[in-house]
Amino acid sequence: MIYFDNAATSPPINIPQLFHNPSSPHALGINAERALRDARKKIAAILGSTDPDEVIFTSGGTESNNLAILGYALANSRQNINLISTPHEHPSILAPIKFAYERNWGTPHTKLVIPTTGPALVSISHVNHETGDINDINAIASDIKKIKPGAAIHIDGAQGFGKESVCLQNIDMYSFSGHKFHGPMGVGGLWIKKGIRLTPLQHGGGQENNMRSGTENVPAIVQMAIAAESACQNFTNNHTHVAQLNSIIRNLKSDLKDVTVNNLGGETSPYILNMSFLGVKGEVLVHALSEKGVYVSMGAACRSRKRAKPALELMGFAPEVAQSAIRFSFSPINTIEEATHAREIIFDLVKQFRKLMK
Amino acid sequence: MIYFDNAATSPPINIPQLFHNPSSPHALGINAERALRDARKKIAAILGSTDPDEVIFTSGGTESNNLAILGYALANSRQNINLISTPHEHPSILAPIKFAYERNWGTPHTKLVIPTTGPALVSISHVNHETGDINDINAIASDIKKIKPGAAIHIDGAQGFGKESVCLQNIDMYSFSGHKFHGPMGVGGLWIKKGIRLTPLQHGGGQENNMRSGTENVPAIVQMAIAAESACQNFTNNHTHVAQLNSIIRNLKSDLKDVTVNNLGGETSPYILNMSFLGVKGEVLVHALSEKGVYVSMGAACRSRKRAKPALELMGFAPEVAQSAIRFSFSPINTIEEATHAREIIFDLVKQFRKLMK
Repeated sequence: MIYFDNAATSPPINIPQLFHNPSSPHALGINAERALRDARKKIAAILGSTDPDEVIFTSGGTESNNLAILGYALANSRQNINLISTPHEHPSILAPIKFAYERNWGTPHTKLVIPTTGPALVSISHVNHETGDINDINAIASDIKKIKPGAAIHIDGAQGFGKESVCLQNIDMYSFSGHKFHGPMGVGGLWIKKGIRLTPLQHGGGQENNMRSGTENVPAIVQMAIAAESACQNFTNNHTHVAQLNSIIRNLKSDLKDVTVNNLGGETSPYILNMSFLGVKGEVLVHALSEKGVYVSMGAACRSRKRAKPALELMGFAPEVAQSAIRFSFSPINTIEEATHAREIIFDLVKQFRKLMK
Repeated sequence: MIYFDNAATSPPINIPQLFHNPSSPHALGINAERALRDARKKIAAILGSTDPDEVIFTSGGTESNNLAILGYALANSRQNINLISTPHEHPSILAPIKFAYERNWGTPHTKLVIPTTGPALVSISHVNHETGDINDINAIASDIKKIKPGAAIHIDGAQGFGKESVCLQNIDMYSFSGHKFHGPMGVGGLWIKKGIRLTPLQHGGGQENNMRSGTENVPAIVQMAIAAESACQNFTNNHTHVAQLNSIIRNLKSDLKDVTVNNLGGETSPYILNMSFLGVKGEVLVHALSEKGVYVSMGAACRSRKRAKPALELMGFAPEVAQSAIRFSFSPINTIEEATHAREIIFDLVKQFRKLMK
């Protein structure tokens, strides 16, 4: 093999992987294109879509949410589109809506109340990233479409895809993020129902059916599809196993006083568990746990290193609950032993911190 | 180690690499942030910048060019910005300019003529992706700034970074793409001189100094920095070696009649060689070579699978030259033996095809 197409793509150092540019005309490019098509088919099938072209690959969940919201807003900006969401959503939903408002591309709404005039896009999460609350997306979408059949429904599936069952009935767009379900970082996608018109945000070579220009990240896309298939094939076992882990940690509620499990009520995903050990600051506990080799967070990573108001406070929780909140997020590769051990460590640390503060 | 922060990021299957979310509060997140900072420092140093914060990581060259052009256009859209380029540029420069025009964010110009009124952004390539022509970017930038000191100069370095020397004097933004210099796919960056104001295109968690939200692709960024360092350290040897490969193939001009080397005149990069074997269609030769294990292209990958007008024709070359054009793009890992062998195969194939067509 003699490869003189390094301006199209050059093989990465030390990563013996499929690396070719799917737009290249030679056999290697055609192979890459085939791998891309297979990955697209797999993801579409997992989402229950029969049309692989409804799946667009992006650089991750944030890009997918931006494309859904700003792409739809730009495609409808002449009619002053209503952008409807809730204050509980991820920054990658709230920030594009705010940006659209600042640029006069749409009018934001912070409640799921559907205005009767003007086009509308509803953008909410499948599983809340802070608390694990599951939105009954099909019921919500069906209710909205009864009032306003033309409304578009976008679901941020970053914490739902591969973890909770997905049904796309009445849904128009669904975002997912590779590295949230053991796929690689830097890759994700957006399912766009046929007929939904978006204005692309990234322009160039016209890849991804003109919806997202830029050489496709083939190795990452292929890896993501493998991770998605694995999540899908082991769905029930994974769910049961993670529910056990969740319940072990959650039972700290019985071991210790003044512990809250934080969610908005209704069904929650076992993959995310948000708890407060009142009186112990979340930040302090996270760092103490990190020193003992237990890695948890105060909440969504993209907020947690900033000294902003805790996300839970913005969601309506009491300040003392919000300040002591810890987010556990589990994976099928975590073990029962890990959960049991972590529970003991947390128990001891909380006792210790509370004693110190007396 | 007990990792219960899978909602921030989950370890990729089968890739035992640094994978953590640099915004996570625990020790793993802090390590990832440190790796990110080191990578940023390395790239900044290679570009001759003393401020690592001037480097923003993106999902690749196309995103970097879009951010430079649309980000600058949006930041200046109230003053009807002039967007100046040439028809020779990559689609990821031309398409955002066209989009900005369609949305009324700016006025496009297709010649490097600087209007005296209104703000201006000039966006051109360092090395032309079709022909290898090197723009003397510092001379061009200096000439422009003499006429209009406030003009911003953006350089698309996708085919230049790590291959030709870069000096950022008088330059305001410089794009690069990981997979063009043996870094991974799906990652790139934009150097933005301090003081240049851009409107971000992707909104969310505020990563990359608020310029580009979305979890940073840490493993890919780290790999890209390693590839960039390697390119930098072996710069002269690589350049000399690639020039030898280039000259072996280029000498087909002496072996065969009716062969052209296609460029715009002036200095060219040895990494790209565009030739026409007149009378033999580029597409036919590319496929015949592919069957023999020699991989070249008709030009930029993002055009070559479409039945569009050949890029070279748009650049002013005669239709018969454009239709038979082949782009060779070399890498330091290609060998002299490969070049010699490819030369023989091409020689035979061209002879054969020409005989058939008589």
